[in-house]
Amino acid sequence: MKKTFLAAVAAAACATSLGAAAQFQKPEDAIKYRQSAFTVLAAHFGRVAAMAQGKAPFDAKAAADNGAIAATMAPLPFAGFGAGTDKGRPNRAKPEVWSKAADFKAKADDMQAAMVKFGEASKTGNLDTIKAAVGDVGKTCKACHDDYRAEQYSAN
Amino acid sequence: MKKTFLAAVAAAACATSLGAAAQFQKPEDAIKYRQSAFTVLAAHFGRVAAMAQGKAPFDAKAAADNGAIAATMAPLPFAGFGAGTDKGRPNRAKPEVWSKAADFKAKADDMQAAMVKFGEASKTGNLDTIKAAVGDVGKTCKACHDDYRAEQYSAN
Repeated sequence: MKKTFLAAVAAAACATSLGAAAQFQKPEDAIKYRQSAFTVLAAHFGRVAAMAQGKAPFDAKAAADNGAIAATMAPLPFAGFGAGTDKGRPNRAKPEVWSKAADFKAKADDMQAAMVKFGEASKTGNLDTIKAAVGDVGKTCKACHDDYRAEQYSAN
Repeated sequence: MKKTFLAAVAAAACATSLGAAAQFQKPEDAIKYRQSAFTVLAAHFGRVAAMAQGKAPFDAKAAADNGAIAATMAPLPFAGFGAGTDKGRPNRAKPEVWSKAADFKAKADDMQAAMVKFGEASKTGNLDTIKAAVGDVGKTCKACHDDYRAEQYSAN
C-alpha cells in the first residue's frame, strides 16, 4: 500500500518535472505540503496583484521580489496531488483532480506558464505590463479552482 | 490597531531583508504564511537530509533541485513573525520569539546562512560535502527550535 502510494507520487512528480522531489511518507504529508505551497504562492502573487488592482502602492522592487518568489513556487504544489492523496487531512481537492487528471494537469500547466510570464513581467517596473500578467495568471487560477477546488473542506 | 500591526510587520520585513514583501491583513494570515513556508522548507531540506542519513538513495540531481528550493525558502518564514502575531491561529511560537527578539533573529540568521551554504553544497554531487552541510543546517534548526518552538500548539 505504502509502496503503491509512493510509486503514484513518483509518477506525479515526473509529470510536474520535479523528478525525485516528491517523496511523502503519508498522504497527509502530501496534502499539507501542497496546501502550504499554495499559501506561500498566493501570498507573494497576491502582493503584486494588490498593486495591480490599486489596493497597494506600486513598489517596483517589491513587485520584482515577490514575482520571483511566486514564479519559483508555482510548480511546487502539484507534486502533492499524487494518487491516494484525496484524504488524510481536510482539503478542498475535488475527486475530479484524479478522475480528470489530464485536464487538471493541463490547467496546472497553464497556471505555471502564466506564472513564468508573470515573473518576467514583475521585473519590468512597468505597472501596465504587470497588470496584464496578473490578469492572465488570475484567469488560470480561476479556471482550475472552478473545476477542481471545492467550496468546503473535506472532513479528513 | 491594524495600522500598528502592519507597521510592526513592515519593520520585521526590513529585518529579514524582504522589504515590502511582508504585508499581511491579519495576524492569522502571517501565522499561516510562516507555518506554510516552514513546511515547504522542511519538505525540501528533508529530502536531501534523508539522502545524507542513508534513508534514501543518493540522487545528485534531486539533491541539487531540492537544495535550491530550500535555499530560496529559508528567508521567507521570518516575515511572518511580526509583533502581534503570537495569536490568531494555533501555533508553536514561544513568547520568547518577541521578548528575546534579537537572539531569535540571530538564530534565524544562522539558519539562513547555513541554508545558503547547504544550497551550494547540494549542487556539488559530493555526498560527503552534502552530509556536512546538512549537519550544519540541522544544528541551526535545533538551536532555534530548542529555545523558541513549543512542544504543543497554542489554543489560538
